[in-house]
Amino acid sequence: MNFEVEQKHRVDDLDRLVARLAERGAMLGSPQAQVDQYFAHPARDFARTDEALRIRAVGDASFVTYKGPKVDANTKTRRELELPLAPEDADGRQFAELLAALGFTLVATVRKTRRPFVLASGRYHVHGALDDVAQLGTFVELELAADETGLDEARQAIAALATDLQLGPSERRSYLELLLA
Amino acid sequence: MNFEVEQKHRVDDLDRLVARLAERGAMLGSPQAQVDQYFAHPARDFARTDEALRIRAVGDASFVTYKGPKVDANTKTRRELELPLAPEDADGRQFAELLAALGFTLVATVRKTRRPFVLASGRYHVHGALDDVAQLGTFVELELAADETGLDEARQAIAALATDLQLGPSERRSYLELLLA
Repeated sequence: MNFEVEQKHRVDDLDRLVARLAERGAMLGSPQAQVDQYFAHPARDFARTDEALRIRAVGDASFVTYKGPKVDANTKTRRELELPLAPEDADGRQFAELLAALGFTLVATVRKTRRPFVLASGRYHVHGALDDVAQLGTFVELELAADETGLDEARQAIAALATDLQLGPSERRSYLELLLA
Repeated sequence: MNFEVEQKHRVDDLDRLVARLAERGAMLGSPQAQVDQYFAHPARDFARTDEALRIRAVGDASFVTYKGPKVDANTKTRRELELPLAPEDADGRQFAELLAALGFTLVATVRKTRRPFVLASGRYHVHGALDDVAQLGTFVELELAADETGLDEARQAIAALATDLQLGPSERRSYLELLLA
């Protein structure tokens, strides 16, 4: 089973962080609009079970993502399933209709502009994102995929990178939680 | 609104039926393997609400189908949503995993080989299928689309065709219901 080790930090000084990323040789990708529709389960309270189900529209494609409960408090490690929707359902409307028929309800929509980057840290390539989130502000996310045996090392790599980039305390709440708070 | 008028009959003598279809000028399509996985809802008893959720694999593509409750007892008219799965999930495995994570459980798998045909009956073209269903045997389905004003006539056309083909009494239960019975 594969895990995602992930940390998120609020960015107070974007220019300084962008400069630091450049110094470290990070390649900033072009900005990408992402619209995430989050759904409530008909029988489970996802806020309580710490799960999430969303449809993400990016450019002219959509994906469905399920996130399982966090298995580690520090790194937000979770089980994650992501599947692309068919080209015939590029905007996710048919899938949203299916969810509605099955009793799922739309909770909130998170709109953001994301600039992805990749950064070498030791023997890892950490995937990062600079997110400008509507109503919430700017955040940076750092992410590493790891299998069970590599989890601790991955966590350490992420933490070291956060220190190196002089990021503040990590934000454990999701954008959805921040938006609903 | 469009309705589907549909009747299903058990076939005791396949050779005789195939001969009768040929006499009537029916074009039998090539056999197609269909594997239908039916799922139970985490909070609703689909058997009681008369809904269904399935993943159908046909050839190298898969579809998700939701069937709402029957709105008419005679014609089995229902709301139906069908969406194709992405080519990356051609066997439906990822979608099945998503359903499992959301608390849906696999109820049964219906495996059949279907040979479709089209048959003229009066001014209608009836769509039919010869189904060889694992564990259940052979059935023939007759189907006509009709709007509200044409419903009675469509029913009569289907019934007349069933008589003409010397089919026995109609089977109202779905393959899933027959398999679970």
